[in-house]
Amino acid sequence: MATNNNYKDFETLDPKDWKESKALMHQMVEDAFNYIENVRERKIWQEMPEAVLSSFSTPLPEHPSDAKTVYKALQETVLPYPMGNIHPRFWAWYMGNGTISGVMGDFWASILNPNLGGGNHAAHKVEEQVISWIKDIVKFPQSAGGLMVSGGSMANYTALAVARNAKAGYDVRKEGLKENNLVFYASTEIHSCNTKAIELLGLGTKGLKKIKVNHDYTINVEALKQQIQDDKNNGLRPICIIGSSGTVNTGAIDDLTTVANICEQENLWFHVDGAIGAIAMLSPKIKPLLKGIERADSVALDLHKWLHMPFEAGCVLIKDSVQHKSTFSLIPEYLEKNTRGIASGTDWFSEYGLQLSRRFRALKVWMSLKEHGSERFGRMITRNIEQAHYLGNCIANNNDLELLAPIGMDIVCFRYNPGGLTQEQLNTLNKEIKLQIEERAIALPGYTTLNGNYCIRCAISSHRVNTNDFDDFVSNVLDIGNEVLQNSD
Amino acid sequence: MATNNNYKDFETLDPKDWKESKALMHQMVEDAFNYIENVRERKIWQEMPEAVLSSFSTPLPEHPSDAKTVYKALQETVLPYPMGNIHPRFWAWYMGNGTISGVMGDFWASILNPNLGGGNHAAHKVEEQVISWIKDIVKFPQSAGGLMVSGGSMANYTALAVARNAKAGYDVRKEGLKENNLVFYASTEIHSCNTKAIELLGLGTKGLKKIKVNHDYTINVEALKQQIQDDKNNGLRPICIIGSSGTVNTGAIDDLTTVANICEQENLWFHVDGAIGAIAMLSPKIKPLLKGIERADSVALDLHKWLHMPFEAGCVLIKDSVQHKSTFSLIPEYLEKNTRGIASGTDWFSEYGLQLSRRFRALKVWMSLKEHGSERFGRMITRNIEQAHYLGNCIANNNDLELLAPIGMDIVCFRYNPGGLTQEQLNTLNKEIKLQIEERAIALPGYTTLNGNYCIRCAISSHRVNTNDFDDFVSNVLDIGNEVLQNSD
Ligand SMILES: Cc1ncc(COP(=O)(O)O)c(C=O)c1O
Ligand SMILES: Cc1ncc(COP(=O)(O)O)c(C=O)c1O
Repeated sequence: MATNNNYKDFETLDPKDWKESKALMHQMVEDAFNYIENVRERKIWQEMPEAVLSSFSTPLPEHPSDAKTVYKALQETVLPYPMGNIHPRFWAWYMGNGTISGVMGDFWASILNPNLGGGNHAAHKVEEQVISWIKDIVKFPQSAGGLMVSGGSMANYTALAVARNAKAGYDVRKEGLKENNLVFYASTEIHSCNTKAIELLGLGTKGLKKIKVNHDYTINVEALKQQIQDDKNNGLRPICIIGSSGTVNTGAIDDLTTVANICEQENLWFHVDGAIGAIAMLSPKIKPLLKGIERADSVALDLHKWLHMPFEAGCVLIKDSVQHKSTFSLIPEYLEKNTRGIASGTDWFSEYGLQLSRRFRALKVWMSLKEHGSERFGRMITRNIEQAHYLGNCIANNNDLELLAPIGMDIVCFRYNPGGLTQEQLNTLNKEIKLQIEERAIALPGYTTLNGNYCIRCAISSHRVNTNDFDDFVSNVLDIGNEVLQNSD
Repeated sequence: MATNNNYKDFETLDPKDWKESKALMHQMVEDAFNYIENVRERKIWQEMPEAVLSSFSTPLPEHPSDAKTVYKALQETVLPYPMGNIHPRFWAWYMGNGTISGVMGDFWASILNPNLGGGNHAAHKVEEQVISWIKDIVKFPQSAGGLMVSGGSMANYTALAVARNAKAGYDVRKEGLKENNLVFYASTEIHSCNTKAIELLGLGTKGLKKIKVNHDYTINVEALKQQIQDDKNNGLRPICIIGSSGTVNTGAIDDLTTVANICEQENLWFHVDGAIGAIAMLSPKIKPLLKGIERADSVALDLHKWLHMPFEAGCVLIKDSVQHKSTFSLIPEYLEKNTRGIASGTDWFSEYGLQLSRRFRALKVWMSLKEHGSERFGRMITRNIEQAHYLGNCIANNNDLELLAPIGMDIVCFRYNPGGLTQEQLNTLNKEIKLQIEERAIALPGYTTLNGNYCIRCAISSHRVNTNDFDDFVSNVLDIGNEVLQNSD
């Protein structure tokens, strides 16, 4: 009765030769560990040559190939052309590096391959435990609802859906949106995924009112209050304020306590987009700045960012689990629970979000938190913040460099500005510096525009980066800046 | 400059000792291959004992543990208590088994850990290629829009969002839902994730009209046409018909050509929920039954079902890529593209769906299709269909067993019915048989209710199952049925 058939007797998708397949996997482990251990020695990024590009336009393979041949294609066409984010000098879009413990968790998730839609099996308990830990981290009660999701976008989406249904004033789930008047609020610095969520929820772009920010890029609460009053006077129905705990541009943290107070007074849902910052509750340096997050009705977290889980890992918490469930639970016959066996179990995760089938993404978090302990993650976060200030000081102490925003958490926005140039010239110059830094594989900084000024933006969330990296980066920026300037004369 | 620091000099989340960590990973590979190779010998499912259950309520670990200790916990508390779906005799909810080639792909996805939100790197090209192959499989033009998503639920959600925005008759993305009158149509057998999607899109449960089915559980097109006319007369705005290519209860395939014709006549969006059946285009046996799918405006596919990818892997195709993009594309400063470097590249995947950060889930599909070739996947699908009919024949040829629905693709619904019992008695009896089959670890069949009759439902999508399994299953059902009946006397 063994599954160990060779294809002559019984074809399956299992390896024809288990030994050979296992040997290949062992080889992959050797290569993969090398790949990670030596990530610093390889180019952070490089352009794909034509031959590689064209290899990706071959037609659907109808016939089998040897697994080793497939692996060779991976090695030749994919591995040398990475995104760069596992490298210590990736400071562009906000991402994590990944970790070996995360890889091990993901490996077992694929081997075990359970479906976390629901059911009575161990994986379900692991996810429950991870969610319970995350509730503790952000000081949410254990009675809260929670779900692991694909990332920050889905976490925000899920929370805003509950907010809509909880605050619409009628059964919007059943009846649909009867009036076109619901309004969410957030600062102009809010992450775009929230806008997308609100559009998809049927409220339209206009369903999110963006409030101006203070000089430190936090939401201006006076303007916020005024807008809410104006909207109420105009027959709109304010339902939710989204606070940011770490904006994507500058790492600004809104005054969450004041936002919580306004929500209380106005009977609004209080959501926190904590994709960047909520997990920084693990850092004693940041925790006090997040005061008020525990009063939120919902929080979105991202664990593939500052917790360095391999993609994907996000989490949403909803304080009132009944509201959470009543937005998503839908149980037809074929998903009905039994009191015994595999189809028993208390709550099913599919009752708390959009997905039915769900990967065992909790396992990597479970294994990583057990192995490293939460304090180490906290120290890594704290160190990034210190590094941001180290880089900030290098910039502040150099006459040719200019900080363009206060350093929020681990995000530094600056430009090369030797003086005597117009805003337009500076923008062109710094865009070119950024691209050359990238093309010369020195580092991958990000970019944004603040008040019309193009910024080189460094989001320093690597657990592998050290201060030497910033010294080298700064000296390269200065050299390249100078060079580009000379050449453009 | 090596990252190879030990924690005394420089603490990171990388292994303290690379050699030791790699040795552990090699051990995991040994154990994992054993786990899969011998899956048939282990219990398909077993209840977790108290001690295991309580191990999942320990608090957030603050301090580190040895990785080996963590692995031991995994081995003792998680691995022995699986969901069952990797076992050849799992025929419950519709799922795949997973494969070793899929595991390898997932392993490298976690090691490389790119973010498929966008950018100019090899992973992006791999996903583009996989989507292009899938377009070929369902006979969609290469100009169509496509996106890998978490699964069938998200694939349907994404398509229905585009349908809403394309057919509302005004700019619903910008202005929100102005009138509460949009209507989707599908049969009563439609999968619940579509209802959930329509509720979330703001149309309410009433935004989906469920049409009665024929005896073979396909949508009754006369009733469908009538409902559309009635709704138009009542001031509602029909926007979309959802056809099923394989319903979850019985595997029924709607008459897609007729549905396509109605959509054309009525100017409606034609969506196909192909979570189960669209990939069966690879089977020459099923392909003719799916005629009309190529005329759909959008198709949802699930690759963690009949293509056996480890979770998660779904795909959505939208014939008009402009409509696809205009529902989801939203580009703030920090996501603006460059013409050179990492932030260049043509279209970004985040412009085609809800997610910004996205896992490299295309890699496992890419590696698996290359290794096995599409024809082998097609043969596996065909064999499952033949097995369903084999089981169906065993049932039809036995006086104590009763088929409760025509066999749709690979799904068999039946009950033990020795005669002389009421519907209620039969329901209770068969529920008990199903649970005992499960508790005795003979197999994991599913269940549903059709016309008030409780069915034991076998969705036969395993690539590891063979006809002996069904012989053994049938004889156990008969024995247990008889036994339960005797005991209840
Ligand atoms: C503040 C903020 N919210 C939400 C997101 C979206 O998260 P994800 O990319 O995981 O979907 C991001 C991503 O950078 C972010 O910075
Ligand atoms: C017909 C159909 N559609 C959609 C889905 C949902 O797919 P998923 O579980 O991948 O979200 C299923 C799942 O069983 C299904 O059978």
